[in-house]
Amino acid sequence: MYASKADRIKDECGLFGVFGNKDAAELTHVGLFALQHRGEESAGIAVSDGKNISCHKDMGLVGDVFNEKNLKPLKGRVAIGHVRYSTTGSSVLTNAQPHVVSYSKGQVAVAHNGNLVNAKQLREKLEQYGSIFQSTMDSEIIVHLMAKPSYKNKVDSICGAVRQIKGAFSLVLLTENALIGVRDPHGFRPLVLGKRNGAWFLASETCALDLVGAQYVRDVQPGEIVVIDKKGVNSLFPFSNKNGKTSFCIFEHIYFSRPDSRVFGNNVGKVRAKLGMQLARECPADADVVIAVPDSGNFAAIGFAKETDIPFGIGFVRNHYIGRTFISPVESMREFKVKIKINPIADFIKGKRLVVVDDSIVRGNTAKSRVKVLRKAGAKEVHLRISCPPHRFPCHYGIDFPNKEELIANNMSVKEIEKYLGVDSLGYLSWEGMMSSITEKKDRYCTACFNGKYSVKFDNHCTKHSLE
Amino acid sequence: MYASKADRIKDECGLFGVFGNKDAAELTHVGLFALQHRGEESAGIAVSDGKNISCHKDMGLVGDVFNEKNLKPLKGRVAIGHVRYSTTGSSVLTNAQPHVVSYSKGQVAVAHNGNLVNAKQLREKLEQYGSIFQSTMDSEIIVHLMAKPSYKNKVDSICGAVRQIKGAFSLVLLTENALIGVRDPHGFRPLVLGKRNGAWFLASETCALDLVGAQYVRDVQPGEIVVIDKKGVNSLFPFSNKNGKTSFCIFEHIYFSRPDSRVFGNNVGKVRAKLGMQLARECPADADVVIAVPDSGNFAAIGFAKETDIPFGIGFVRNHYIGRTFISPVESMREFKVKIKINPIADFIKGKRLVVVDDSIVRGNTAKSRVKVLRKAGAKEVHLRISCPPHRFPCHYGIDFPNKEELIANNMSVKEIEKYLGVDSLGYLSWEGMMSSITEKKDRYCTACFNGKYSVKFDNHCTKHSLE
Amino acid sequence: MYASKADRIKDECGLFGVFGNKDAAELTHVGLFALQHRGEESAGIAVSDGKNISCHKDMGLVGDVFNEKNLKPLKGRVAIGHVRYSTTGSSVLTNAQPHVVSYSKGQVAVAHNGNLVNAKQLREKLEQYGSIFQSTMDSEIIVHLMAKPSYKNKVDSICGAVRQIKGAFSLVLLTENALIGVRDPHGFRPLVLGKRNGAWFLASETCALDLVGAQYVRDVQPGEIVVIDKKGVNSLFPFSNKNGKTSFCIFEHIYFSRPDSRVFGNNVGKVRAKLGMQLARECPADADVVIAVPDSGNFAAIGFAKETDIPFGIGFVRNHYIGRTFISPVESMREFKVKIKINPIADFIKGKRLVVVDDSIVRGNTAKSRVKVLRKAGAKEVHLRISCPPHRFPCHYGIDFPNKEELIANNMSVKEIEKYLGVDSLGYLSWEGMMSSITEKKDRYCTACFNGKYSVKFDNHCTKHSLE
Amino acid sequence: MYASKADRIKDECGLFGVFGNKDAAELTHVGLFALQHRGEESAGIAVSDGKNISCHKDMGLVGDVFNEKNLKPLKGRVAIGHVRYSTTGSSVLTNAQPHVVSYSKGQVAVAHNGNLVNAKQLREKLEQYGSIFQSTMDSEIIVHLMAKPSYKNKVDSICGAVRQIKGAFSLVLLTENALIGVRDPHGFRPLVLGKRNGAWFLASETCALDLVGAQYVRDVQPGEIVVIDKKGVNSLFPFSNKNGKTSFCIFEHIYFSRPDSRVFGNNVGKVRAKLGMQLARECPADADVVIAVPDSGNFAAIGFAKETDIPFGIGFVRNHYIGRTFISPVESMREFKVKIKINPIADFIKGKRLVVVDDSIVRGNTAKSRVKVLRKAGAKEVHLRISCPPHRFPCHYGIDFPNKEELIANNMSVKEIEKYLGVDSLGYLSWEGMMSSITEKKDRYCTACFNGKYSVKFDNHCTKHSLE
Repeated sequence: MYASKADRIKDECGLFGVFGNKDAAELTHVGLFALQHRGEESAGIAVSDGKNISCHKDMGLVGDVFNEKNLKPLKGRVAIGHVRYSTTGSSVLTNAQPHVVSYSKGQVAVAHNGNLVNAKQLREKLEQYGSIFQSTMDSEIIVHLMAKPSYKNKVDSICGAVRQIKGAFSLVLLTENALIGVRDPHGFRPLVLGKRNGAWFLASETCALDLVGAQYVRDVQPGEIVVIDKKGVNSLFPFSNKNGKTSFCIFEHIYFSRPDSRVFGNNVGKVRAKLGMQLARECPADADVVIAVPDSGNFAAIGFAKETDIPFGIGFVRNHYIGRTFISPVESMREFKVKIKINPIADFIKGKRLVVVDDSIVRGNTAKSRVKVLRKAGAKEVHLRISCPPHRFPCHYGIDFPNKEELIANNMSVKEIEKYLGVDSLGYLSWEGMMSSITEKKDRYCTACFNGKYSVKFDNHCTKHSLE
Repeated sequence: MYASKADRIKDECGLFGVFGNKDAAELTHVGLFALQHRGEESAGIAVSDGKNISCHKDMGLVGDVFNEKNLKPLKGRVAIGHVRYSTTGSSVLTNAQPHVVSYSKGQVAVAHNGNLVNAKQLREKLEQYGSIFQSTMDSEIIVHLMAKPSYKNKVDSICGAVRQIKGAFSLVLLTENALIGVRDPHGFRPLVLGKRNGAWFLASETCALDLVGAQYVRDVQPGEIVVIDKKGVNSLFPFSNKNGKTSFCIFEHIYFSRPDSRVFGNNVGKVRAKLGMQLARECPADADVVIAVPDSGNFAAIGFAKETDIPFGIGFVRNHYIGRTFISPVESMREFKVKIKINPIADFIKGKRLVVVDDSIVRGNTAKSRVKVLRKAGAKEVHLRISCPPHRFPCHYGIDFPNKEELIANNMSVKEIEKYLGVDSLGYLSWEGMMSSITEKKDRYCTACFNGKYSVKFDNHCTKHSLE
Repeated sequence: MYASKADRIKDECGLFGVFGNKDAAELTHVGLFALQHRGEESAGIAVSDGKNISCHKDMGLVGDVFNEKNLKPLKGRVAIGHVRYSTTGSSVLTNAQPHVVSYSKGQVAVAHNGNLVNAKQLREKLEQYGSIFQSTMDSEIIVHLMAKPSYKNKVDSICGAVRQIKGAFSLVLLTENALIGVRDPHGFRPLVLGKRNGAWFLASETCALDLVGAQYVRDVQPGEIVVIDKKGVNSLFPFSNKNGKTSFCIFEHIYFSRPDSRVFGNNVGKVRAKLGMQLARECPADADVVIAVPDSGNFAAIGFAKETDIPFGIGFVRNHYIGRTFISPVESMREFKVKIKINPIADFIKGKRLVVVDDSIVRGNTAKSRVKVLRKAGAKEVHLRISCPPHRFPCHYGIDFPNKEELIANNMSVKEIEKYLGVDSLGYLSWEGMMSSITEKKDRYCTACFNGKYSVKFDNHCTKHSLE
Repeated sequence: MYASKADRIKDECGLFGVFGNKDAAELTHVGLFALQHRGEESAGIAVSDGKNISCHKDMGLVGDVFNEKNLKPLKGRVAIGHVRYSTTGSSVLTNAQPHVVSYSKGQVAVAHNGNLVNAKQLREKLEQYGSIFQSTMDSEIIVHLMAKPSYKNKVDSICGAVRQIKGAFSLVLLTENALIGVRDPHGFRPLVLGKRNGAWFLASETCALDLVGAQYVRDVQPGEIVVIDKKGVNSLFPFSNKNGKTSFCIFEHIYFSRPDSRVFGNNVGKVRAKLGMQLARECPADADVVIAVPDSGNFAAIGFAKETDIPFGIGFVRNHYIGRTFISPVESMREFKVKIKINPIADFIKGKRLVVVDDSIVRGNTAKSRVKVLRKAGAKEVHLRISCPPHRFPCHYGIDFPNKEELIANNMSVKEIEKYLGVDSLGYLSWEGMMSSITEKKDRYCTACFNGKYSVKFDNHCTKHSLE
């Protein structure tokens, strides 16, 4: 049995791109480190020397996949990189990205963050037309669409391809001499543009720009294609049917993105602190100390503490060494599996009435185990507070929530969950409270996982699980 | 260039032992995870099946060294494990522990935490007598001493050996059918005894007992040898010359041990919070927010905030994925090296007057870089607060501080350091303030790294650096 | 610098297939061992469990690529395997075979031995039509051709595809429930059918059948497709334009195939012995002993000795441990590079007049070095005898000879080569002598590398080197 | 199940040493390649830069253990290397050689070929005295003996140590600035001295000198210690009780050494050819062709053919790719295990009366399988000829024969073996015939494995198997 760093909700992917620096691959390598939380299963870098695209990718963390030896041959001034969790496609090497192909217009490498809702239809159509598929990834569909003979040039082929795909897609593409970024018309997933000393950068989150010392310039706009080459940055808006409505993923703020990133115009850590403050107003608790489930609950817990004047404390110690660790499946190890990642500090917990702030409850079993651990450590009362509403709907736009049936909030009322988890009280943030924590207008966000309002239609037979 | 998780102060080692569980090696494997912060360079487990001792050890983190395949053959009901940084002995495989040998009394495996001050003399004496050395580790000296022909049995040979060594040593030993723990008469390094379902445990810190679900029973006493076999736990006190004075390492509280551990009778996190509160009383600052250098400054920062009523905030995000990561030595990467581990959250820092709490300043260069990073992120004022007095003396008992010459507090006054680091103010906790945060009597602690009062004499030619 | 086992002429590939045994992948693994001499760069096995095709492949020898762990999941009763040298496509993982894809008719895995002469045109045409290429291999072209929408079913799509490709191609294909073998109308490369206990086998050479205990049934005919499924073995002959002329590669007999294989109806070892006997008749020499350049010259040397009554001896010892061995590029190592593979036995050579029999001279530098080594070991006379005519033309059908310019026989007369190599005499077998050693009719063979008579036209811009 | 290259008789070890070349480690690396047949389980190189000895060793073949990265740091002008099979000590990393230690006289590295008959007594005595053992190798005993305090200097300590050990031992030792070779008074194992451009070499066999381009100077004499340092080569003869009788291992000629080596004053290939000729005189056969079991029977077979005028042919093809290959333990693989290494060429065997020449029969099961394979391939008659007398006694001097009970010649008469193997006739070479093939006097050789006359006494409880 292997314990993964991320046993909860899997984000889909992280993207990075550089144009115009002789150490493009090294900078991408560094950028991917900052985005590692967006994908721990595989990592890859493709680089162009102006004539040829070369690529190295493998299963594993960035630090495991790349070393001095395999980075050295990745020469060139333009590069893209990718880290991924599997949403579509199983976890095998052929599904690692970037996806590099050659077609009638030359070579191209593609890296994708998101999930296409019409992947199955497109794939069937392409196969009918004569396409062969070597992976189960959405990104392979995109390159097939680009390869259709009618296009004049590469940019044209990219525009033509992305007009046909539906769903959530932020893309970075690499041609022999250009870096291209694409964000779907709804802007589900983030993508930002940065600059440093004449070089341009694309990244899923600003924390990656910080790490390479680049300045944040602006977000790539929903529905925008940015073509970066020696002529500079050129914008295209190929999506005709755009009604101006966006669907920024609210969960990027609640859980996915790094707190030091600026996402959809807001600093993530600040949003989380506000969520915690609003949560305190909506669901206060009479308690001695506010603790977080680290690290995702940290900011909201501090916000909660600030709003209530109950002191903030550290109740759990997180073990940072747990990568893909082998754990013997022996009987003696049972308890260990709960505690390997976060261990309670009994001296801070014993006899205390605790407010415990977490970002979400999915199936409920991890939460239940943690409550048990806190009780065993002597907690007098446990008041669990969640910094968003109950999750009741699956995501079709790139987040790997479990099926509807497995989401605890679909099967139990809040009172029942309270009882199931064994807490003294349970409070979720309201939808309105959540939306009030963000500066953008409410209707600019996708909150389908809370309210089932899906902005892009999908066919139930065509979603992620159908291909595998 | 490789970035290490721990670029600051290296702890020496972590020890773990199990007696009386059929999954002894698996439990040890788990226990070592909880102790990984005490040693990231090598890991090893030795196990006895009652007749033979087998061992697997290698360079690397616990999760890298052990897997299903190499754990499986480690069968038996008694085991010891070890994680290490090099203090004596270079970082090579032959220096990984446990050290397993056979001698006239049978087989024995030894794992050591600490540093012997008479290692060189003993080694020379042993070589004169005819001993051969295959490593540069102190633990090999111990087994040579045990092998002298005059002893009646194994326990006798252990007593005889440890009477001759001087300095800091917590040891766990494994014989064919016993688990033995030793703590030096001064008790420099921690060692605790735990129990679960009839099995006994030894560990450097209680957090390892927590992880395997064992109850903390008591500390192994300074000068005590505990022999655990089928007859139970038997105590010996072989050190005749003991005057009752102890020298618990104060730095275990300030930096080394995990905050969820109970060390020398105090919870580490609590001690750190008190250090922060006392620091606030001694060196207050007019500021908007208190932030920590994560993770070692977290508890003291919360204590500081609590005492001053300045809100606690998170100013840095720590990247948990940085293991032994290859970083290209290219020019573009310079800035990256400072930020790869902790990245400031500009939105929380910009325009703010900050109190920044850290556990120590050693050479000063890392601190200087971080101040620069905070300034760049827009900090208005930076008030640096250190939760212990200035480090001015090397440690001869197992902590890998740099030479006296490199310790910044030996070369500059506090004012000069303040200027060098570029902070608006710098405050260190006083020695008295530090000691007031601990419940035990002051003279039970070694604080030599602050005041140069070494409780165990050493010959400058015989310390750690002389053997390599 | 790495020394490869095969520094001379690279064969293209080895094929193996099994239908109807529950250990299909294991049998394929074994079969590939027997074919390892046909390709040392990568190895792969694809297996079908009746529903899905799974595949493992990697760079390296069969024994390096496969182990217990990665063979175990390859479950199913139908499998194909491949070992390869690069002729088209560089030596990278994406070029390892079998090539597994899904298309409108389902899944298919393809493995190819040979070289297509119209690869470039087909690829360009396919790209014009909208195909994307993820490798530089001919086999990817074949699956693209199969994917065209007009075909009724898989077999139909295979027939349609192979009708469009030109050049040398023996193929094994795997569908969900069938094993398919294809041999081009000229039959350049061998492919045989075998049987054991109800299971069917395809293999490049009979030595692989021997190893798995299968009986040789017959050669797959030039221009034949054998479809093996639960209904048995079915033959198709889809090539309409076949004029009955074949082009068996003569070099399979001279150098490539294993001496224990029966290829094109003749035992390879026997053919080589006859070549040696004929060589003795054509180019006798007054000498004390006949030695071979091991192992490829062994049989011809024994034939030469038998015909002339000069005793056969062993003059070189071959080192069997030279895999991909790292050799320091230091000055002291120069001599070593010549001798690492075969070392002369001075005691057998000193003062002797030697006949040295080898299979071919390509560039001449290896031969020159070996003559020097023999002289240094005391050889009195060196009479070099080559068991085929001079190589003067490149191969476009799958053998990786160097360019015409580098072939020594294009730049020098036999007399000049004699002088260049420093031998007392040099004799090549005549074309007629070579052909007389084979039982089949002369015009059934391709001998283009000797006489430049290419049976299948090629465009110079479309051959192997153009794509890389 | 793994198939090993050497499933028959394991040689003990190969030794190599260099003094006075700046690429000492690289030369040793090359030298070990030539000696790989003497030990396939582990490989190691130790090198001195004049001050420190560094070492790299691991389990595996030379080509697997060493690469550019780990060879590079092995800097210095003096080096020794070792390849080994386990005779004493199990196959684990701690038993790999050279054995590097530091003791009162400085550092020393030791590599050993042979087997000590008084290992157990010495070890017990040393443990009584206070020595600790970290491996189960004889070489560790030697360094313990060297470490005794009474010696004046390193050379003195080596002399003192080797005077106490009994049995077979060729040693190479490395000190900070000298290379030392030792050969036991009986000279069981070979050791030769070579020279090139001012550098000196020691090697188990001359084939290693050939490979590095060194000239053979002379054998290290039985009972001689050669000390090679900047003053040149100095000889010592420390063994007082030497009666001048030697015990050269006859099996080095018959099986172990490479045919291109000169061992004990005779070229190995030549001796084998003479053994074959004598065998033909003693045990002729009426047959069509003489074939060898490759490669060890090759020379004797050629000799046999020459003497009888029956033509020599190649009946088996050896697969050179079988390293430590995983073979699935599935039922279908049974036959494969016999044929994976050598496959018969049916076309040369069918209907023929064969003389098959092999070097020895140990347990008889491999021979039996091969006879079966030949019968299946159509052999009309099989006349097995063995180029030495029947093996009936174990070796206590370094060759890993099985126990007496397992040696077939102890349990059956020649007639019974003939029947058991299923051959038409079986002939062994006589002891006298064997000895007549060697130029040295008969009594200079150890032939104990044939006649049980052991020249050095041993205690049955003290031999190789007792320690494991």
